Amino acid sequence: MWDTIWINGKLATMDARHMANGDGYGAIPDGAIAIEGDRIAWVGRMRELPDRPEALATHVRDAGGRWITPGLVDCHTHLVYGGNRAKEFELRLTGASYEEIARAGGGIVSTVQATRAASEQELLESASVRLERLMEEGVTTVEIKSGYGLDTETECKMLRVARKLADQHSITIRTTFLGAHALPPEFKDRPDEYIDLVCSEMLPKVAEQGLADAVDAFCEGIGFTPAQTEKVFQAAERYSLPVKLHADQLSDLDGAALAAKHNGLSADHLEYTNEKAVKAMARAGTVAVLLPGAFYFLRETKMPPMEAFREHGVPIALATDSNPGSAPVTSLLLMMNMACTLFRMTPAEALAGITIHGARALGLADRVGSLTVGKRADFVLWDIEEPAELAYRIGHNPCAGVIRSGHIAR
Amino acid sequence: MWDTIWINGKLATMDARHMANGDGYGAIPDGAIAIEGDRIAWVGRMRELPDRPEALATHVRDAGGRWITPGLVDCHTHLVYGGNRAKEFELRLTGASYEEIARAGGGIVSTVQATRAASEQELLESASVRLERLMEEGVTTVEIKSGYGLDTETECKMLRVARKLADQHSITIRTTFLGAHALPPEFKDRPDEYIDLVCSEMLPKVAEQGLADAVDAFCEGIGFTPAQTEKVFQAAERYSLPVKLHADQLSDLDGAALAAKHNGLSADHLEYTNEKAVKAMARAGTVAVLLPGAFYFLRETKMPPMEAFREHGVPIALATDSNPGSAPVTSLLLMMNMACTLFRMTPAEALAGITIHGARALGLADRVGSLTVGKRADFVLWDIEEPAELAYRIGHNPCAGVIRSGHIAR
Ligand SMILES: [Zn+2]
Ligand SMILES: [Zn+2]
Repeated sequence: MWDTIWINGKLATMDARHMANGDGYGAIPDGAIAIEGDRIAWVGRMRELPDRPEALATHVRDAGGRWITPGLVDCHTHLVYGGNRAKEFELRLTGASYEEIARAGGGIVSTVQATRAASEQELLESASVRLERLMEEGVTTVEIKSGYGLDTETECKMLRVARKLADQHSITIRTTFLGAHALPPEFKDRPDEYIDLVCSEMLPKVAEQGLADAVDAFCEGIGFTPAQTEKVFQAAERYSLPVKLHADQLSDLDGAALAAKHNGLSADHLEYTNEKAVKAMARAGTVAVLLPGAFYFLRETKMPPMEAFREHGVPIALATDSNPGSAPVTSLLLMMNMACTLFRMTPAEALAGITIHGARALGLADRVGSLTVGKRADFVLWDIEEPAELAYRIGHNPCAGVIRSGHIAR
Repeated sequence: MWDTIWINGKLATMDARHMANGDGYGAIPDGAIAIEGDRIAWVGRMRELPDRPEALATHVRDAGGRWITPGLVDCHTHLVYGGNRAKEFELRLTGASYEEIARAGGGIVSTVQATRAASEQELLESASVRLERLMEEGVTTVEIKSGYGLDTETECKMLRVARKLADQHSITIRTTFLGAHALPPEFKDRPDEYIDLVCSEMLPKVAEQGLADAVDAFCEGIGFTPAQTEKVFQAAERYSLPVKLHADQLSDLDGAALAAKHNGLSADHLEYTNEKAVKAMARAGTVAVLLPGAFYFLRETKMPPMEAFREHGVPIALATDSNPGSAPVTSLLLMMNMACTLFRMTPAEALAGITIHGARALGLADRVGSLTVGKRADFVLWDIEEPAELAYRIGHNPCAGVIRSGHIAR
């Protein structure tokens, strides 16, 4: 006897086994999902059920013919931070110079200062608002990075807050240590010394306290060099932590290839990534995480190498990149639309990007991201006529219910 | 004795009388608003109140230090329609040809067919979902156009539905007759005959039944010529209905100048409008209604003449253009962000665009759009630290309360 069975659903399983006929959703139009504990125990067509639903499960729930997708995965966010950069946004648009903005306390340094000054409770509360917004749209797994502390204490504080968010909300949170996000003002002109601190003090402390599930860096002209990035990766490897990378966002530094070389879970942004690096990603199984919200907000015009990803079979994930500087975004559904509109992805590719491929970018593809037996029973009911509507509509949330670990969460 | 007084608000009045110091919000940081009936009876600083609030009004309500703006105005929508074009969106992105899309029932003709086939009740229900979404973000006034009927009966049906929406929801709705939106298939190659039908049958019927507050047309290579448009305007003038125009969206046909020549309330889209036409708009008091959602969705790259609007003092309004083909948008706050990000408007300009200038584009500037004594008591409380946040955040709705005609509506 199963605990629960959901009947009368149209399933977008996002499971490759159901995509054989070229259907990118792995659709089962007359579907049912059985739950045992917090896991999916059965998925298939109603007519293939071995008995009447009432004879198979303690609770029978009717999806009312609604579409059901896996719980959404937002695999790249900077959700925890102090302060608010709306004023800086306004100053830029009124024509203020960079100096004026810096004098008014703008730029990433302002977020670092506000994050250092904030208490854990303050960070928890401000991040909770953003997290709730994501959850309203059916997000059941989210990644959260540190990177606005840039000192050992504050980096640990950010990661503790990220862990606590998971206690307070019905959501899975994966944390990523991003000490090498930017050079803190107190290390001006001494980036190598800062990277030493990241590798020999911050990362060990974060690892010993079990605060991070992965390690990330910002490899860029305005960030850290490939050589500095590689030091961070090597330190991560000493603690058996998988790596990811902010790569090739503003210029081609072969960052994606570096991530692939270190068997990175993902390389993220990738507007300027070259085809050779794409091939290396394919070989290493490194996921391409695209962030159309940042592309939009920064008015970038260079497209990521979409055809190369497809040709070489690199899985494409999508995320909000939710952050105060370049993507103050808290709608993953809108990222689907932007991926379709700006990157010309198909709605099915976009949905895979925020489910199965998002899960893969977090090393969770065996646990979440598709409606598959054995995976966690995280799924979303939608008031839509077809899955493409999730990508088509702009500013509409058709989420009609969220099941998380087998239970109705929303 | 006033009915109600709201105290402890930070007011973004959007009233030019409070903008003397260059503050585009007309801000009153320690503000109060008194309501008498459905009107604003007093607006000002707390300390300027002639007595204690309790001595002045029957009900005293505390805004808790929140920002308060006028109720938002969405001055250009096609909210009432049948069907769903998500499938067409998907087909385009999977590389289907125009023929294939047409064969699959795509394009505006599919919306016309679905709208003709739908009952009033069906149209009412599908539009209600979209209207509710706008209202959740603080919209208290919305314009709705016909234009997917393209026959007398269905055009009237759409406008009746728009009128009924106002009975069922706490919102002001202005209706616009847009019979000259597209050429219906049954008039293929006979646009002048269709325009005759619009002018001599549809418009008279619409006017006699009081179904429209204004008349609009689509003046474009793929729409109607300036000469055909002018016939529609002349017919509108016979019924004393003000005009507006979908102008210069894809090419410069001097549409904005034509709207100005007929003292149009607004000219809308305007990506290709020339400076001479902008001057004519300024002289006529015709509002420029920009639709950044359509600009984004169509991946347009030609910017509207922003500097010319500013130089010549043309008021700039913003709207969702909510429609199934080129802007499936139901977030006016997102349009603020897109106006800032894509058109480089300031957050204060964007807020004026969805309040006072939106009201002006509907001929309602004397009644709504600012926190001004004598106007309708429509206003919104926001959980934000400064008004720029409304434009800065993407996919977040900080609406904390809506007062409509003096009463708490949300
Ligand atoms: Zn990032
Ligand atoms: Zn329109």
